[in-house]
Amino acid sequence: MRFSYLDHLECSRCAKVYDADSLQGVCTCGAPLFARYDLERLTGSFNLEQLVARESGLWRYHELLPVSSPEDVVSLGEPITPLLRLPRIAQHLDLPMLYMKDEGLLPTGTFKARGATVGVSRARQLGAERLAMPTNGNAGAAWALYAARAGLEMLIVMPLAAPPTPRAECAISGARLFLVDGLIGDAGALVVQAVAEQGYTDISTLKEPYRLEGKKTMGLELFEQLGWRVPDVILYPTGGGVGLIGIFKALEECQQLGWIGPKLPRLVAVQASGCAPIVKAWERRAETSEPWKEASTIAFGITVPKALGDFLILRALYKTGGCAVAVADEEILEAQARLANLEGSFICPEGAACFAAAARLRQSGWLKATDEVVVFNTGTGMLYPVTVKVDAPLLSQGVPIPAG
Amino acid sequence: MRFSYLDHLECSRCAKVYDADSLQGVCTCGAPLFARYDLERLTGSFNLEQLVARESGLWRYHELLPVSSPEDVVSLGEPITPLLRLPRIAQHLDLPMLYMKDEGLLPTGTFKARGATVGVSRARQLGAERLAMPTNGNAGAAWALYAARAGLEMLIVMPLAAPPTPRAECAISGARLFLVDGLIGDAGALVVQAVAEQGYTDISTLKEPYRLEGKKTMGLELFEQLGWRVPDVILYPTGGGVGLIGIFKALEECQQLGWIGPKLPRLVAVQASGCAPIVKAWERRAETSEPWKEASTIAFGITVPKALGDFLILRALYKTGGCAVAVADEEILEAQARLANLEGSFICPEGAACFAAAARLRQSGWLKATDEVVVFNTGTGMLYPVTVKVDAPLLSQGVPIPAG
Repeated sequence: MRFSYLDHLECSRCAKVYDADSLQGVCTCGAPLFARYDLERLTGSFNLEQLVARESGLWRYHELLPVSSPEDVVSLGEPITPLLRLPRIAQHLDLPMLYMKDEGLLPTGTFKARGATVGVSRARQLGAERLAMPTNGNAGAAWALYAARAGLEMLIVMPLAAPPTPRAECAISGARLFLVDGLIGDAGALVVQAVAEQGYTDISTLKEPYRLEGKKTMGLELFEQLGWRVPDVILYPTGGGVGLIGIFKALEECQQLGWIGPKLPRLVAVQASGCAPIVKAWERRAETSEPWKEASTIAFGITVPKALGDFLILRALYKTGGCAVAVADEEILEAQARLANLEGSFICPEGAACFAAAARLRQSGWLKATDEVVVFNTGTGMLYPVTVKVDAPLLSQGVPIPAG
Repeated sequence: MRFSYLDHLECSRCAKVYDADSLQGVCTCGAPLFARYDLERLTGSFNLEQLVARESGLWRYHELLPVSSPEDVVSLGEPITPLLRLPRIAQHLDLPMLYMKDEGLLPTGTFKARGATVGVSRARQLGAERLAMPTNGNAGAAWALYAARAGLEMLIVMPLAAPPTPRAECAISGARLFLVDGLIGDAGALVVQAVAEQGYTDISTLKEPYRLEGKKTMGLELFEQLGWRVPDVILYPTGGGVGLIGIFKALEECQQLGWIGPKLPRLVAVQASGCAPIVKAWERRAETSEPWKEASTIAFGITVPKALGDFLILRALYKTGGCAVAVADEEILEAQARLANLEGSFICPEGAACFAAAARLRQSGWLKATDEVVVFNTGTGMLYPVTVKVDAPLLSQGVPIPAG
C-alpha cells in the first residue's frame, strides 16, 4: 500500500502536466496547478471500510493527500470537525435539515489549518526552507504556526487593518511579520518581490498546489459524516475561494472513486456586499471576476477583491447549479449573535455570513424547506472579540445584582 | 444497557450520602459532593472493546457520566483532544518522553467546555432553568454558551480585569453579565446573594457535583490514548483545582473498574507565584490552604486565592507522591513563546506555566529524563492575544521587504 497516490500536477485551466516531485508554482499560463492522483490504482487497492479503523483527523485520507510518507506529516492534532444539528436556527430559518460544520475547533482557530498542515508538510518534504505569503490574518496564523512546528522560516505580510488575534498568532510563532497600509493585494505585491529577490517559496493562495489539497478534506469529512453521500446544498464563505474549490475537487474525486453517487450538492459562494466580485460575476454568468473597488467588510477574511481562482469558483457554481449571494455587515452581525444566543456557538463573521445568506435564499425560495443544507463555519468567533457588543454593567462595591 | 451508571452523591469530606436524582449543592458540612457510580454492575456489563466503535468525544464515556439518557446531552461537538509529541521542547527540557494534551481545541477554547457540556446537560435534566456563577472568564464563557445551547438562563459575574475575549463569549451568548472591581471571590459573594434572593441554581466551582464529572474525562481520554495505562507524571495548572481533582477521580474509578493497573501518576499542581496558596500549603504538608493576599498573575485563569476544593487537591498530591510548584509570570511568557516558536502551538499562559514548572522540576531532579510526562494545556492562546509581544513593522508605500 502506498501512503499517497499522488501522480502528477495538472494546470486547472490549460491541462498542461507538471512533475509533482519538485516544488512548483503556477502554470506558465498563470493558472493554479491541481494535484492529480492515480485514482484507478487506488480504487483497486482500497475500500472505505479500511477508513473505519483509522485515527480521527484529516490525515486519515492520506491516499488522497500529497505527502508520500507518514514521517513527513506536520500535524498539530487536527480533529474531525463536528457536523452539528442546529434545531433552533433550523426553526428560525425554516430549514429543518440544517447542519453546521464547525471548523473553529481546528488548531489556530480556523479551517486554514487544513491547508497549512498539508501545505507545510509537502513544502518541507520537497525541500522548501523559507516560505512567504500575504494574508488577511487567519491563513498567515495557520501557516506561521505549522511552519514553526516544521522548523521552517516564514515571512508574513498582512494588512494593517487585519484583526489583532491572528496577528498575535503570527508574531508568537517567530515568523517575520510585516504590515501594509492596504489590502491583501498590496501585501501580495510585496511578497512577489520578496520571493523574486530573497529566495522565498511563494505559498500565496493557489500559487502552490497543496494548500488546496488540505481544504479538500472538508468535503471528504463531510461526505463521510453523512455516510458517503452529499447534502442538497453547501454554503461557504468565499474570499480566495480555496475552500469551495477544494470541496468541489473532493466531489469530483469521490465520484471518480465511486465513494459517492452522481448527485452534486448545489454550491453557494457567500460574500459580503462590501466585497462581492464573485457575486457580480455570477449574476452576469461571467467566467471570471473583475477586481472589486474599495473593498470593505467586517468579515475581514473574505475581503479579497480579485481571486486568482475566480474562474474555478464560478465553474463550481455553474456545474453544480449553485449560486452566489452577498450579505450586508448588519445581517452578518445579527446572524452571529443569533447563533450564539440560540445554539451556543460563537462563530466567525465569515461563517455568520452564510447563515444570513441562507435566510435570504430561503425567503426567495431558492432554498426549500425539504433541502438538506450544510453551512460551513470557517472559524471561531474568539478570533474577533471586537465584533461583539458587550453590555456588562460594572457593579459598585456593596451593590447587589439587580433582579432579572 | 444503562446509559449512565450514576448511583448516588457522596460528600467528599464526611461521606454523607445524597440522592442524585434531584438538584444538589454542597454537603451540609460545606464540602463538595462527588457523583458515585455503580461500578460493580458496570464491570459486569461492559468491557473496553465496546468503546472502540463509539464516536470520538467525551460522551463516549457516558456510563461514567451523570446524564441518564442521550437525548439530554447538550453538546457542541467536543472532539477528543490531541496528545501531541513535542520533540523540540522535549529536547530543550531534557524530557524525551514529553507529551502535551491540548485542550485548546475544545468548543469555547478551553477545557472548561468539558465541565459545561456535562454540567449543563445534567442541570437541565434535573429541572434547573436559571444558572448563576462567578468566573475568571473561561468557565463563564463555556457555561454561558452551553447554557444558550440548552435554552437555559445564565447569570455571570466576573472581575473587571478578566480578559476581553471570554467576556465577549459570555456577552454574545445572551447571558446576564456583570463585572466587579475585585477578584473571583468578590464575584462569588454576589452570586451567593443572587442565588439566595433570585432563585438561581448555584453552579460555582464544586458547588454542584457534575462539572467535576466533565473534567474527569480529561483523565479517561488520556488513559485511553495511552492504551489504558498512566504516565509517570501529569502537570496541571491549578486555580480552583477541578481539573486535577477530576483526573484523580478518573484514576480511582478506572482502577476500581480494572481498566488501568495500580500504578499512580505523580500529580503536579502548577500555580503562578503571584497566587500560590496550594504550593504554600503543600510545602507545609497542610491539609487545607490559606487565602492568598493580593493575588495577581498574567495567568488569570488560575488566580484563585482560596479554592473550595483545596483539601481535595492536596489529598491528590499527597496520595500520588506529587508536588506543587509556583512559577513567575516572566517564566510563563517565555514558555508560551517557546512553545509557539519550537512547536507551533499557541498555548494559554496557564498551560505555559506547566512547561515552566517542568523546567524547574527537571533542574531540581524531581523529574527524571526517563519519566513519561504529560502536560495539560488547558486552553488556546487565542483567548489572550495581549500576552503576545507583537513586533510587526509597518511598511511605507513603495518600500520593499528588507532582506532577512
